[in-house]
Amino acid sequence: MLVQKYKDMLSGKSVIRQLSEFATARGQEIGYENVFDYSLGNPSVPVPQAFTDEMIRLLTTQDSVALHGYSPSLGITSVREAVAASLERRFGLPFRKEHIFMASGAAGALAHAFRLVTQPGDEILTFAPFFPEYHPYVDLTGAMLKVVPPDTESFQINFEAFEEMLTEKVMAVLVNTPNNPSGVVYSTGTLQRLADILRKKSAQYGHDIMLISDEPYREIVFEGVDAPCVARFYDNTILCYSFSKSLSLPGERIGYVAVNPACRDAETMVNMCGQISRGIGHNCPPSIIQLAVSKVLDQTADLKVYETNMNLIYRELKELGFTCVKPGGTFYIFPKALEEDAKAFCSKALQYDLVLVPGDTFGAPGFFRMAYCIATEKVERSLEALRKFVKETY
Amino acid sequence: MLVQKYKDMLSGKSVIRQLSEFATARGQEIGYENVFDYSLGNPSVPVPQAFTDEMIRLLTTQDSVALHGYSPSLGITSVREAVAASLERRFGLPFRKEHIFMASGAAGALAHAFRLVTQPGDEILTFAPFFPEYHPYVDLTGAMLKVVPPDTESFQINFEAFEEMLTEKVMAVLVNTPNNPSGVVYSTGTLQRLADILRKKSAQYGHDIMLISDEPYREIVFEGVDAPCVARFYDNTILCYSFSKSLSLPGERIGYVAVNPACRDAETMVNMCGQISRGIGHNCPPSIIQLAVSKVLDQTADLKVYETNMNLIYRELKELGFTCVKPGGTFYIFPKALEEDAKAFCSKALQYDLVLVPGDTFGAPGFFRMAYCIATEKVERSLEALRKFVKETY
Repeated sequence: MLVQKYKDMLSGKSVIRQLSEFATARGQEIGYENVFDYSLGNPSVPVPQAFTDEMIRLLTTQDSVALHGYSPSLGITSVREAVAASLERRFGLPFRKEHIFMASGAAGALAHAFRLVTQPGDEILTFAPFFPEYHPYVDLTGAMLKVVPPDTESFQINFEAFEEMLTEKVMAVLVNTPNNPSGVVYSTGTLQRLADILRKKSAQYGHDIMLISDEPYREIVFEGVDAPCVARFYDNTILCYSFSKSLSLPGERIGYVAVNPACRDAETMVNMCGQISRGIGHNCPPSIIQLAVSKVLDQTADLKVYETNMNLIYRELKELGFTCVKPGGTFYIFPKALEEDAKAFCSKALQYDLVLVPGDTFGAPGFFRMAYCIATEKVERSLEALRKFVKETY
Repeated sequence: MLVQKYKDMLSGKSVIRQLSEFATARGQEIGYENVFDYSLGNPSVPVPQAFTDEMIRLLTTQDSVALHGYSPSLGITSVREAVAASLERRFGLPFRKEHIFMASGAAGALAHAFRLVTQPGDEILTFAPFFPEYHPYVDLTGAMLKVVPPDTESFQINFEAFEEMLTEKVMAVLVNTPNNPSGVVYSTGTLQRLADILRKKSAQYGHDIMLISDEPYREIVFEGVDAPCVARFYDNTILCYSFSKSLSLPGERIGYVAVNPACRDAETMVNMCGQISRGIGHNCPPSIIQLAVSKVLDQTADLKVYETNMNLIYRELKELGFTCVKPGGTFYIFPKALEEDAKAFCSKALQYDLVLVPGDTFGAPGFFRMAYCIATEKVERSLEALRKFVKETY
């Protein structure tokens, strides 16, 4: 008598995971150093030493009963205060602890955000190309994720398609900038126009349309790129953050929901997150990780390698004749494949031990994603393989 | 446009939490050492040193990218293997890693178990007295928690009421032994009879009725008490465990789901947990905590103080004329109040700075809970207050 919807999901394996498993298996044959594995978005640089030092300080100096004790259901108060202060310093918005809910990574934060503002049958819109996990994240709440087709010229927003799909059933719009998989950062123009439309339609429909901003790549922005703060454009914004990428600790499950102080009922929403938690078995990120992260809020891992890798790959791609929007951040790039069927393209690339992910899974067929969170030395060797692949195949 | 059900929950404050807040506030007036705070079930003894040592070893010797990396969605393989081996040693059932799903505490484990086997509208039965958080845990999934009234003589199962309530709509039965709030351990006779009924009714209704066993107090069992393993009596058992109490680290959110190897579709169920996670934003307990806990699976914090406290309190209660079932484990005791209305009783006790929780909230009006996870010295002082309270009031 098992619940069929979850059983059915077992057969639909993630393309990204399948490719990653292929890369691991191939690595056992020829040595993993010879597999150019661009499949997974796993940080490749160490956590800041200050985080490790703070963990050890807590473990060696603090009373263990207090240190490992229950966190209040909204998060440890001092940690929420520190997060709010950091956001205020950073973005100039008057965040207070009352606007912060500590969550177990962006997945945990999004799980709360979706439940705050949608009921079964409601719609959430997001924009292709998009992180494919958004589908189970949203669909399993009973709400429905609908995907606005991409503007493939710029990977900014396809506003024409968006306005058509923004019906009365849409309760929230989900954005992800800097974007996985395109690496593109939404411009001021894009965010301004998005906010204008949301205000207009909220008024027209007589209900607030919430903007949910998924920002795990907020700190990975390349030189000279302006990455505007989404919440500055639209009051009814729920910011979902994860430290996974900025601090290189995806396994420790730490992030937060920050409700824009200007949002209607902001404090109530944060309190509601504590109730949502009871239904989904969340009960806060680990206490010691909350405490340690709160001491390094304004630091990041050394993220320079991602920009170095991006520049190498982007230059090579252009030289080889690929069409490609230059990423403004993240550790992803999303070029157009050299044939219409990106799945066929990626499958051929495997012959050269290049593990690329077809764009179909991100809602943008014909493109492919490279996750370049790997050593620069390996990127350099991979480009030889890429040249060989392209010259011998196209 | 906030979701009303969560908003409504904000006004229904937990009685336990309210009393705990009273205790804290009163502590600020007269010194917390003078408040006999029996409200909260927070462990009061340190984590084993071996856990702290292992955390420091991991932080100082392991590559941080690997250490803090993503856990596979079912948990770190070596950790699942270690948990399975420990369960096999302990209970003689052939657990393998395929039966283990790592979860963020018992709340996380239960969130998965309920979703595995119930759909909206289905019923889950549990037995009073019961942990009141079961209500939001179950009800927010869309299933319904129904509570079988207590057998107040023994706090074993009221089988007459149970058989009446075990209709075709019941998909799972939830037990908690050793029990919060009664401290009672279900006997072999109780578990045998429960299993017989479940087998009979499963056959009659043509669907498996799952037994969900919530076992956070498994390791806190007092001398001479036999605490039988629930899964040994019934194949279709899902065991939900937390290390919060046994290792004194409730804030670090670590536990597991273990599906009885004899359960129909056991391995499929564990794989399904990985899918359920995607919908509730769970994504595994923290990597470093998984790794550290896996090294101390067969250890506990020094739990003797709980038995010492229980014996002191139980003896005093009996001398003062209370009716009380002697706890076999946990750090709770659940005596009958000296007047019919336990709320009035507990309210009068507050005059003596005794913070007791009325049984109404646990589905057993007329009783009250004492959580004696406090220093023995404070228990001793509290007994003077209890004597004074009883003599002056009744």
